[in-house]
Amino acid sequence: MNDFPLTMQHIFWRIEKLYSDSEIVSRSEEGIERKTYSEFATRVRKFSSFLQSLKLSKGDRVASIEWNTRRHLELYFATINMGYVLHTINVRFHPNEIEYVINHANDRYAFISPEFESLTKNLKTSLNGIFLLDNNFDKVIDMQKPINEFPQIDERDEAIMCYTSGTTGRSKGVVYTHRTIYLHSLTLLAKDAIGISRKDSVLVVVPMFHINGWDLPFSALMTGSKLVLPGPRPKPKDLAELIEKEKVTIAAGAPTVWIDFLNFIEKENYDISSLKIVVTGGAEPPKIIAEKFNKMGVHLYHAWGMTETEAITTVNQNQEMISSQGIPLPGIEIKLMGLDREEELPWDSKSIGELWVSGAWIAKEYYKEIEKTRETFKLINSRTWMRTGDIVTINNKGYIKIVDRAKDLIKSGGEWISSIDLENAITGYYKVFEAAVVGVKDEKWGERPIALVKPKKEYEGNITENEIKQYLLSLNKFPRWWIPDKIIFVDEIPKTSTGKLDKKVIREMLKNII
Amino acid sequence: MNDFPLTMQHIFWRIEKLYSDSEIVSRSEEGIERKTYSEFATRVRKFSSFLQSLKLSKGDRVASIEWNTRRHLELYFATINMGYVLHTINVRFHPNEIEYVINHANDRYAFISPEFESLTKNLKTSLNGIFLLDNNFDKVIDMQKPINEFPQIDERDEAIMCYTSGTTGRSKGVVYTHRTIYLHSLTLLAKDAIGISRKDSVLVVVPMFHINGWDLPFSALMTGSKLVLPGPRPKPKDLAELIEKEKVTIAAGAPTVWIDFLNFIEKENYDISSLKIVVTGGAEPPKIIAEKFNKMGVHLYHAWGMTETEAITTVNQNQEMISSQGIPLPGIEIKLMGLDREEELPWDSKSIGELWVSGAWIAKEYYKEIEKTRETFKLINSRTWMRTGDIVTINNKGYIKIVDRAKDLIKSGGEWISSIDLENAITGYYKVFEAAVVGVKDEKWGERPIALVKPKKEYEGNITENEIKQYLLSLNKFPRWWIPDKIIFVDEIPKTSTGKLDKKVIREMLKNII
Repeated sequence: MNDFPLTMQHIFWRIEKLYSDSEIVSRSEEGIERKTYSEFATRVRKFSSFLQSLKLSKGDRVASIEWNTRRHLELYFATINMGYVLHTINVRFHPNEIEYVINHANDRYAFISPEFESLTKNLKTSLNGIFLLDNNFDKVIDMQKPINEFPQIDERDEAIMCYTSGTTGRSKGVVYTHRTIYLHSLTLLAKDAIGISRKDSVLVVVPMFHINGWDLPFSALMTGSKLVLPGPRPKPKDLAELIEKEKVTIAAGAPTVWIDFLNFIEKENYDISSLKIVVTGGAEPPKIIAEKFNKMGVHLYHAWGMTETEAITTVNQNQEMISSQGIPLPGIEIKLMGLDREEELPWDSKSIGELWVSGAWIAKEYYKEIEKTRETFKLINSRTWMRTGDIVTINNKGYIKIVDRAKDLIKSGGEWISSIDLENAITGYYKVFEAAVVGVKDEKWGERPIALVKPKKEYEGNITENEIKQYLLSLNKFPRWWIPDKIIFVDEIPKTSTGKLDKKVIREMLKNII
Repeated sequence: MNDFPLTMQHIFWRIEKLYSDSEIVSRSEEGIERKTYSEFATRVRKFSSFLQSLKLSKGDRVASIEWNTRRHLELYFATINMGYVLHTINVRFHPNEIEYVINHANDRYAFISPEFESLTKNLKTSLNGIFLLDNNFDKVIDMQKPINEFPQIDERDEAIMCYTSGTTGRSKGVVYTHRTIYLHSLTLLAKDAIGISRKDSVLVVVPMFHINGWDLPFSALMTGSKLVLPGPRPKPKDLAELIEKEKVTIAAGAPTVWIDFLNFIEKENYDISSLKIVVTGGAEPPKIIAEKFNKMGVHLYHAWGMTETEAITTVNQNQEMISSQGIPLPGIEIKLMGLDREEELPWDSKSIGELWVSGAWIAKEYYKEIEKTRETFKLINSRTWMRTGDIVTINNKGYIKIVDRAKDLIKSGGEWISSIDLENAITGYYKVFEAAVVGVKDEKWGERPIALVKPKKEYEGNITENEIKQYLLSLNKFPRWWIPDKIIFVDEIPKTSTGKLDKKVIREMLKNII
């Protein structure tokens, strides 16, 4: 075939040959560190030498538990350029879950931030050794001889793997190949995707320990942007400082990051006028975020994706209807499938069905999980389609609107109730900070909705169940039978390790409440 | 593998599903025609039905001799979606050359503009039939039943083929696959490439009969832009009208197109304020084009590529050094190879060598030409590298500067003289419209440069050989031995069918002059 393979090695070629003086800026507790692409590339070549000395073979797994740092990025390229596979582990996983995924992936070595040393100490794993990514280790790498030539790699070789932090069941592994990463990273450069350019300064707040920071570091590096990595647990102040100092033009993070950031920035005096685009995803961004950013001259892009779809799959740049998840990027096709029967439904903004996706960076299976793979991935005309489990409508221009997660839809009296619609409505009430709605078994109706509500600090103790029910009715949006049977006020709503509402735990909490 | 294949069918999916009301605007002698993507897609499905009724098989060749029109674009997708191969024939080929390429490609049917009917009448070819793309044919297509499902296609299946209009020797065929077209079209969407978006109105002046209009129609369609096709022989007035009326934001054409356009627009009153980007290539754009466009708020992008590299391979967006061919796009790697020995030279802006390219849309061979393939394409570590024949320097940021074509370099007294440098310098003289410099055999020096000069109309008869020689010396740029031995004034300089200086003919003209 002797095709030009679509690999990370080619991205590395660009880093080294075309953009030698572009910068990688990395924040740590010790301050801001700055490296040119050229310095970075040399470090990667030395790090690859070090990995080679560990006698790893092609396809061997190397684990990481680390934040968005220059060291993590070095490990990314050092591992992948050599044909090994990087397994990024979510820093918020429970030690049991860490042990499980290390063994399931059969990781050979782990490279971790020193703060996680105790966390991993007593695990029984497949690991031959653990290295701490610290100043001492930097020196060890500096002493290596840079590797001269990387081994030949095929575009279908495995590059990075990541485990879902699903709200239900055990974590499942997804493997990204050189090809999927290359195609996704390239597509994000398109103007109608994110439109990253050489002139941009890109702040990646989305974690590099989960879906490669949405592949945004690769996009930025392949076109020579300044890449800004915010390090461990960045707070709004850290982000504001980085944006001001590094003249960030594009930033990506979950909605909660931007809610906190906007609350902070409104009271403080930072010059964030360089910022032009904020990308958000992982949950629907409240409209107010878009409005506030728009006033500052910032466009909010709403992206949708999941671990199985390698992060960004659809993008919505339309500020007027920002709650939509947008249209599929080039390389992605979608289908709307009936809930009761497997038949395609029309894109009429009304028909509710499950979103199926197929595309250039959509997974084809869960790693070593035949049964779960069979449930989720369907081979149709020799192409794999993934059942996303997201319940959506699609308009006649292909704009997706998530109505609910399949498993979070509430079926009451034979009709569907969207838990997300109720959550968004309740959160719109001025006294409410956060809300979760789940279905609870009910003898008469099958299921009935129950809401968990965390009030804003200043309204704690000064908010009633009836008040919220009246508010919901006053919206003239929901039929009476959609109104939750009970509203329970809490201090915290259970969350998963990636910060999503943990409905599994909530359902368990509430199962005997009616 | 059950990968998602990178095909034109996926581009068509986007046209049909996501951008139904985007527009395709096509100019003809009868006026401006407007179709929505949705109407276009239906026509394509009907046209595919028609092709199917011709009993073609997968891989069969279908020829076209046609301008940039809606009909040509329909033929493109109708053919390719069905798994047939479109062979676009250069409308400027001599009938003998047309006969040759039709037979060499083994074309089954041809679809041509009525104006070329007489041209093709008496050819002895492999064709079973010729169809004229006219109003009657539109009606024939309208009566077809739209095809429901296209056959399954692999990304490595052939899609379009095109013959070089080389200045030396017989035309050579190059085949583009679904994969190469998809990857090239996608990459052009990147902001640092061309950066086409949904909001753009894209005027493709570069011909669809040669390298698919640089794949720009596909880029525009895959992201939902308005696509503006200027039809047969567009004059500056036609382009100005289209830009004004269709609010064109991006336009692509050869430098000569823009020289004529700028001369026209300076004297006329058109509102072309919508125009933001002009892409040019095929020859080095004179600096004055960039300066004039910049004053109007338009950025000139200088792209480089050739038939074998599927058009755009490097792009320069830097207005300050616009004569550079730019840096390779994502998906392309380059090498600078020594002229006397095959060794890599440094990227130091000084070392002169041949440009070698390898990449995601670089050809791997000439169609059915084993010997010519062997001369041009080299397999290195299971990857194909193409010797471009372009003599270049590369700076430390990867910016290429073409010094000459390998075969046009002049070797005099054992040293290299760049014919292009001399041509550019001579053309910079205020009395000169155009110049060509070739090497002519010389007993003492091996070769000596001779210049052919076409003066500007107003200076005809009022320009001397000595005047130009003195001018060249006054530039303090060339050693004395670079100055051409003879300067010959002519009314026209011989050109190839794609408008390039035809050095083969010029050398033949001048071979006995010394």
